[in-house]
Amino acid sequence: MATIVPLNEKRDAEAENRRPNLDALLAQIDGDLRKVNQHILDHMKSPVALIPQLAGHIIAAGGKRLRPVLTLASAQLCNYEGDRHIALAACVEFIHTATLLHDDVVDESDLRRGQASANAIWGNEASVLVGDFLFSRAFQLMTADGSLDVLRILSDASAVIAEGEVLQLMTANEPTTTEEAYLEVIRSKTATLFAAATRIGAVVAERPAAEEEALESYGMNLGIAFQLIDDVLDYSADQRALGKTVGDDFREGKVTLPVILAYRRGDDTEREFWHRTIERLEQEDGDLEEAMRLMTSHGTLTDTVDRARHYCSVARDALGIFPKGPIKQSMTDLVDFVTDRAY
Amino acid sequence: MATIVPLNEKRDAEAENRRPNLDALLAQIDGDLRKVNQHILDHMKSPVALIPQLAGHIIAAGGKRLRPVLTLASAQLCNYEGDRHIALAACVEFIHTATLLHDDVVDESDLRRGQASANAIWGNEASVLVGDFLFSRAFQLMTADGSLDVLRILSDASAVIAEGEVLQLMTANEPTTTEEAYLEVIRSKTATLFAAATRIGAVVAERPAAEEEALESYGMNLGIAFQLIDDVLDYSADQRALGKTVGDDFREGKVTLPVILAYRRGDDTEREFWHRTIERLEQEDGDLEEAMRLMTSHGTLTDTVDRARHYCSVARDALGIFPKGPIKQSMTDLVDFVTDRAY
Repeated sequence: MATIVPLNEKRDAEAENRRPNLDALLAQIDGDLRKVNQHILDHMKSPVALIPQLAGHIIAAGGKRLRPVLTLASAQLCNYEGDRHIALAACVEFIHTATLLHDDVVDESDLRRGQASANAIWGNEASVLVGDFLFSRAFQLMTADGSLDVLRILSDASAVIAEGEVLQLMTANEPTTTEEAYLEVIRSKTATLFAAATRIGAVVAERPAAEEEALESYGMNLGIAFQLIDDVLDYSADQRALGKTVGDDFREGKVTLPVILAYRRGDDTEREFWHRTIERLEQEDGDLEEAMRLMTSHGTLTDTVDRARHYCSVARDALGIFPKGPIKQSMTDLVDFVTDRAY
Repeated sequence: MATIVPLNEKRDAEAENRRPNLDALLAQIDGDLRKVNQHILDHMKSPVALIPQLAGHIIAAGGKRLRPVLTLASAQLCNYEGDRHIALAACVEFIHTATLLHDDVVDESDLRRGQASANAIWGNEASVLVGDFLFSRAFQLMTADGSLDVLRILSDASAVIAEGEVLQLMTANEPTTTEEAYLEVIRSKTATLFAAATRIGAVVAERPAAEEEALESYGMNLGIAFQLIDDVLDYSADQRALGKTVGDDFREGKVTLPVILAYRRGDDTEREFWHRTIERLEQEDGDLEEAMRLMTSHGTLTDTVDRARHYCSVARDALGIFPKGPIKQSMTDLVDFVTDRAY
C-alpha cells in the first residue's frame, strides 16, 4: 500500500549523520520538559476516570511536544529564570491536544501518531467532551498564572484556530482553492499556536516588544513551514515514520498545496481527475498512484518544500536580534529539521 | 405521536392567569438584555462566514436567554451600576451555546428548540468547530473584561461542565445509575453554569463573599431544579411547547431521574423492561407508552417534580440575606416559574 516517492530515496547512512536533529535542543531544555510532562500528568487528573484515560492516551502517546518545547526554548533564549513557563507550556499542549481530539472527530480519523485515535476507541462523543475539558483546564491554568497578556495571546489564538478549522471545512474538497486561501488556513489552524507558544517565552521573561514580536514571527513562520512539510509527508512518508497512512489526505479529499499546485499546473484531463477524486470523492484503485504521478511530473511536492524553505528563512532571520548562543543555535537547527523531515 | 401525560391536564384558563411568569423580571432587565443581545451579535462576527451563520442560527433562534438573564438580575440585585455585566452575560451565553452545539453532536439530535439543530443542517464537524470558536470568544471577552475572579469562575465552570458531560456519557444507558450519581451529573453539566452566571452578578458589584455565595447557591439550586423539570418535560410536554419530541430521552436511552426511580420501584419484569429499552436500546412500538405508564403508576414524574421543589426551596432561602424589593421578588418568582413549567 505504502508508495515511496522519490523524495525518500536520497537517504543514505552518511546523509543521515549530517541531518539536523533535535538532540541538542532537547538536551538544553530537558529538565524543564520533564517538569512540563509532570505538570501535564498532574493537571489532566479528574474524578471522572475516562478523562485521564482518554487524555492520557493521546498526550502520553508522545508526539513531539513541539509546541511546549518552543515555549521552553523561547523562555531560555530570553534568559527567563522563573518557573511560569512550565505551566504555560502545559497550557499550550492542552490546547493543542484539545484541537487534535476535535480534529480527529471532524476528519473521522482512525489513526493518530500510528496508534488508534481516541475517537476510534472511545467514540466521537468522548473525544469532543474531553477536548472541551482540556481546553477549559488550559484556561484554568492560565488564570492561575494570572497574566492577562498570556490569556489574551492564547484566547486570541484559540479563536483564530477555530476560525481556521472552519475555513478549512468550507474549502474542503475544492481543488480550485487558491494558494492564498490555503495559506490563510494553515496560518490560522497550525502556525498561530506555534506563534503563541514562542511569544509566551518572551512575555514571561518580560522582554521588550521587539523580542516578543521576533519570537512570534519565528513561531508563525516555523509553523507554516511545518504544516507545508506535513502536507508533503502525507504523500511521501511511510506509515511507520509518520504514524499516518500514505494518502490519508487524498482519500479524505483534503486540499493541500501539492494538490492545489498540481491542479493549477494540470491540463483539462488532469483537472477533471482532481474534480473526480478530490471534489466528488469518486476514487478508484490506482487513483492515489496517479495523483502522486501527477504531483511528481509537475514537481509540486518539491515545490511545496521550496515554499516551506521560504518561511524557514523568514523564521531564521526573525531570531537575528538575539545574541548568539547555544539555545539560539538549537532553535535555528530546529528550522532546518522541520524541512529536512521531507527527505 | 405526542402522548400527553396527566400532568398537563390541570391547565385551565384561570390557573393560567395565576401562573408565575417571567414578565416582571424581563421588564426589569429589558434594557440590559437588549444590550446583551447586541453584544452577542457584535461578537459572533467573523470573516469566516459560516461562523456567524451557524452561531446565529442557534443563538438568534432565541431560547430563554435564561443564563444571561440570571447575570443581569443578580447584578441588579447587588445594585451594580456599571456595564461589565453586559459583556459577561454574553460570555455566559457563548459558553452555554458552545456546550449546546457540542451536546447536539454527542446526542446526535436533529431538533433544538423546535428547529433543525445546527449539526443536522451543517454537519457535526461545523458544530464542533463553531462551538470551539464561541468558547474561545467567551475567553477573549473575559480577558478584555480583565477580572481574574471572573476568569476563574468561568474556566472552573467550563471544566466542571465538561466533566459532567463525560460522566453522563459513562452512565448513559445504565438504568441502575443511582440518584446521587445522576444529581452529580446535572449539578455539573447544568447547574454549575447557572451558579457561575448568578455569582458573576455579585463579583462585578464587588459585594461581600456572603452575597457572592448566596447568589451562587441560588443559581446552583435553581439549575438543579431546572434540569429535573426538563427531564420530566421530556415525558410530558408536547413538542410545540418544548421544541423537542416527547420521548427523545427515552429513545436515546438517556437515564434521568424519572427512569431511575421507576427502575428502583419496579419489579423484576419491569426492570427487565428498562434493561431492554434503555440499556440495550431494543425498543418496539408501544415501549414509550409503556415507559410512561410505569412512571405514572410509580409516581416518578410527580416525585421528580417534588425533588425539584426541594431545590427550589433552597434557592429561595439563599436569597434571604438580600433586602426586599422588586428584583428580589422577580428572582423568587423565577424559582416558581421553573417548577411550574411541568404543569
